[in-house]
Amino acid sequence: MDIKQYMQTLGQQARDASRALSRAGTDQKNHALRAIATEIRAAADILKQQNDLDLVEGKTKGLDAALLDRLALTDTRIEGMAEGLEQIAALADPVGEISNMSYRPSGIQLGQMRVPLGVIGIIYESRPNVTADAAGLCLKSGNATILRGGSEAIHSNKAIAECIHRGLEKAGLPTTAVQVVETTDREAVGQLITMTDTVDVIVPRGGKSLIERISRDARVPVIKHLDGICHVYIDSDADLEMAENIAFNAKCHRYGVCNAMETLLVDSTIAADILPRLAQRYATESVELRGCELTRIILTDINAATDEDWDTEYLAPILSIRIVDGLDDAMDHIHQHSSGHTETIVTENYAHSRRFLAEVDSSSVMVNASTRFADGFEYGLGAEIGISTDKLHARGPVGLNGLTSQKWIVLGSGQIRH
Amino acid sequence: MDIKQYMQTLGQQARDASRALSRAGTDQKNHALRAIATEIRAAADILKQQNDLDLVEGKTKGLDAALLDRLALTDTRIEGMAEGLEQIAALADPVGEISNMSYRPSGIQLGQMRVPLGVIGIIYESRPNVTADAAGLCLKSGNATILRGGSEAIHSNKAIAECIHRGLEKAGLPTTAVQVVETTDREAVGQLITMTDTVDVIVPRGGKSLIERISRDARVPVIKHLDGICHVYIDSDADLEMAENIAFNAKCHRYGVCNAMETLLVDSTIAADILPRLAQRYATESVELRGCELTRIILTDINAATDEDWDTEYLAPILSIRIVDGLDDAMDHIHQHSSGHTETIVTENYAHSRRFLAEVDSSSVMVNASTRFADGFEYGLGAEIGISTDKLHARGPVGLNGLTSQKWIVLGSGQIRH
Repeated sequence: MDIKQYMQTLGQQARDASRALSRAGTDQKNHALRAIATEIRAAADILKQQNDLDLVEGKTKGLDAALLDRLALTDTRIEGMAEGLEQIAALADPVGEISNMSYRPSGIQLGQMRVPLGVIGIIYESRPNVTADAAGLCLKSGNATILRGGSEAIHSNKAIAECIHRGLEKAGLPTTAVQVVETTDREAVGQLITMTDTVDVIVPRGGKSLIERISRDARVPVIKHLDGICHVYIDSDADLEMAENIAFNAKCHRYGVCNAMETLLVDSTIAADILPRLAQRYATESVELRGCELTRIILTDINAATDEDWDTEYLAPILSIRIVDGLDDAMDHIHQHSSGHTETIVTENYAHSRRFLAEVDSSSVMVNASTRFADGFEYGLGAEIGISTDKLHARGPVGLNGLTSQKWIVLGSGQIRH
Repeated sequence: MDIKQYMQTLGQQARDASRALSRAGTDQKNHALRAIATEIRAAADILKQQNDLDLVEGKTKGLDAALLDRLALTDTRIEGMAEGLEQIAALADPVGEISNMSYRPSGIQLGQMRVPLGVIGIIYESRPNVTADAAGLCLKSGNATILRGGSEAIHSNKAIAECIHRGLEKAGLPTTAVQVVETTDREAVGQLITMTDTVDVIVPRGGKSLIERISRDARVPVIKHLDGICHVYIDSDADLEMAENIAFNAKCHRYGVCNAMETLLVDSTIAADILPRLAQRYATESVELRGCELTRIILTDINAATDEDWDTEYLAPILSIRIVDGLDDAMDHIHQHSSGHTETIVTENYAHSRRFLAEVDSSSVMVNASTRFADGFEYGLGAEIGISTDKLHARGPVGLNGLTSQKWIVLGSGQIRH
C-alpha cells in the first residue's frame, strides 16, 4: 500500500469513527479516558522499553541533548500522561450544549448546539506525552484523531497508541477513534494536511518553522500560533510599583514560553523613574536589556536594540525596551510588531485602559496583569491543545470548546415558508 | 504601478482604515450607513448611466440574458440598496460586546470581547447591488473591505464606490474603509486571496466554480459555502399531512436557492402512503421526480435516479427520492451525500428527533420545519453575507457576528504569576 492510500484509509476510518464518537455519551468517553490512563500506568515498563529504542536510535543519529530530553519517557512523565487523561475526564463535556433557544416570529424555535469538529489531525515533534494529551482532548470533545508525531518517537508513540486502543475497546469505542500514523515517511504529513474530504482541522504543535511549513501547504484549516511577541506597556498613569512587578514577572517567571514579554514599552513621562528600578530587578536575573536611543540615555550601559529586535521572540533572558510618546504611540508599536498573542497595559487611567482593551488586536488583552496569565489553565479551560493567534474560530488558549463547532438547530411544529 | 503593488497598497490602506473603524462608535458607523444610503438615492441617475455602459459592453460581449438581468441596476434595485443600508444601520452593533466576565482564583477578571476581524476581501460576480450590501455589513461590524466585483460591472461598482466614499467622508471615516478594486485584471484576485499580512478573511459570493477556485488558491482564510444539497427525511412516525406540506414547501417555495430540498428520503414503512399524495402535489408544479428502485415500484411512471442525482444540487424543479430503511439508513445517506447545509426530519418520535439533531452534521438541523427557514432573516440575523457550510468559525447563515471575532480580556489589579 502506498503512502497516499495508507493515509486515505486512516482518514476514512477516522471519519467513520467520528460518527460513533458523536453518538458516544459523556460517561462512555470518560470511561475510555480513565481506562486509557489505567493502561498507560500498567504499561509503564513497556513504554520505557520502547522509548529506549527511540533514545538509542536518537543518540546514534546525534540528536542534541534538549531533543533527547523532550523525547524521554520517565516514570514522572508516564504518570503525568495518566493524570492528564484523568483530569480531562473530570472536565465538563462541551458536546451537545444547546444555547440561545428562542422563538422566531414564524413559530420555529431556534438555537445552537455545540458539536465535535469531526476529525482532527495533530502534527507534533518528538514529545511522546503529546500523543496521550492530544488524544485525550480530542476524545473528550467527540473528535476522531490522526496523530503524526516526530519520527524519532515512533516506537514510543506506537506503544502509547496500543494503550489508547485497549482503553477505547474497554469503553466500547472504535480503536480507529485515535490512530497513530505508523510510517515515518514525510509524505504522510503532506497527505494528512490536504485530505479535505476526511480531515476537518489540523493542529500543528512545535517550532515556528514546522508550523509555517504546514500552514503554507495545508488545504485543511489549521489552528495554530506562530510565535508570541508579547508587550507590556507602562502608561504615564501607571502605579510604578505595580508596573515594576508586572514587567519583571512577565519577563522572568519563565523564559521559554510564548506568553512571556519580549518587548517593554514605557511612556516617556515616567521612563526616568521606572527604568532604573526595573534595570536593577532584571540585573538580579541577569536579563540582557536592549534599548532604543531614548532608553539608552537613561540606561547608559545597555546595548542598542536593532529593528530586528522588535520582531524577535527571544524565549530567553533578553528584553528589548522602547520609550514611547503616549498611548497612541504604544499601540502603533504593538500594531506593527505584535504577533497577536498577548499584550498588557499598566495604568490607573480609566480612558486609557478602555482604549487599550478595545483597540489592541491580540488574542488576549490585559490591564494590570502579567502576560503570563494567558494560559488555558489560568483561564479555567482545564487543559489546552495550544494557543491560537489566528482570528477565526478558536482564538487564544484552545481548550475543549475550541475543538468543537456550533450548528443551528430548529424545532418546529410543521412550519413552512410563506 | 503593477497589479501586485496596487493590491498591496489597497491592503495596507485597508489595514490602516481598519484601526480607525475599530475606534469608530456605533453612532458614527450608523451615520455613515445612512449617509451612503442618501448618496445612493441622490445618485440614481448617475448609477443608471454608468450601469448602462456595463450593459452595453455586456451585450457586445454576448453575455446571456440571466447575467445581464443580474447586472442591471433598476430604480427598484437602487432603492433596495439604500433600504438595505438603512436596515443594517438599525441592527444592533456586535462590536465591543463583552461576555462571560468572571473572576479566576488568581484574582484576575476574565471575559471575551467581540471585535472586528479587520480586513475582509469580498469577491463576487456581476451583481452591483452586492457592492453596497457587503460594504454595509462589513462597515457595521467594524471591518475594512476590499471589494472585487465581476469585471462586467466595473463602471457600476466604481459609481457605487463613489457614493460610499462620500457617505464615509460625511461621517468622518476614512474612504479607504471601503475600497473597490478598480482594475479588471484577474491577477488582482490572485493577489487579494494571498495577502495574508493585510487581509484577514475572504468571502467569495457566486457560483460553485468561482468559490472552488478561490478556496483552492487562497492563503487567507475563506468563509464560504459551495452548494446546498439539502434533505428532508420523512420518518416512520411522521404526521403525514405535515410531512406532505414540509416536503412540498422545501422543494417548491423557490427553486434557485441553496436551502431548497434536493433529495427526499422516505421511510419504507410509510412510503406507499405518502409518496402518491406527494407526487400529486409535485405534479401541480410540474416538478420532475427521479426515484430509487423502490420508489419506482410505488411511483411507476417516474425516471430512475442515477448515482449522480444524490450528489446534485438541481436549483430547479427536479427532485430525487429515495426510500430508506429507518433512521440510521437515512442518516447514512445524508452523511454520504449532504453538502452540510440543512437537513430536516419530519417525525412525532421523540428519540428519533433527538438522534437526528445530535448526529446529523450540517450547519442547520431541523425537526418538523421546512429547510427554507435556513436563512439570515428567518434566523433573526437581520441580514446575511452568505451561508457557510464550513465547520470552523461562522457556520450556517453569516450575519454581523460572523464577521467578528472574540478576544480574551483580562482586568487585573496588579496580579503576577506565582
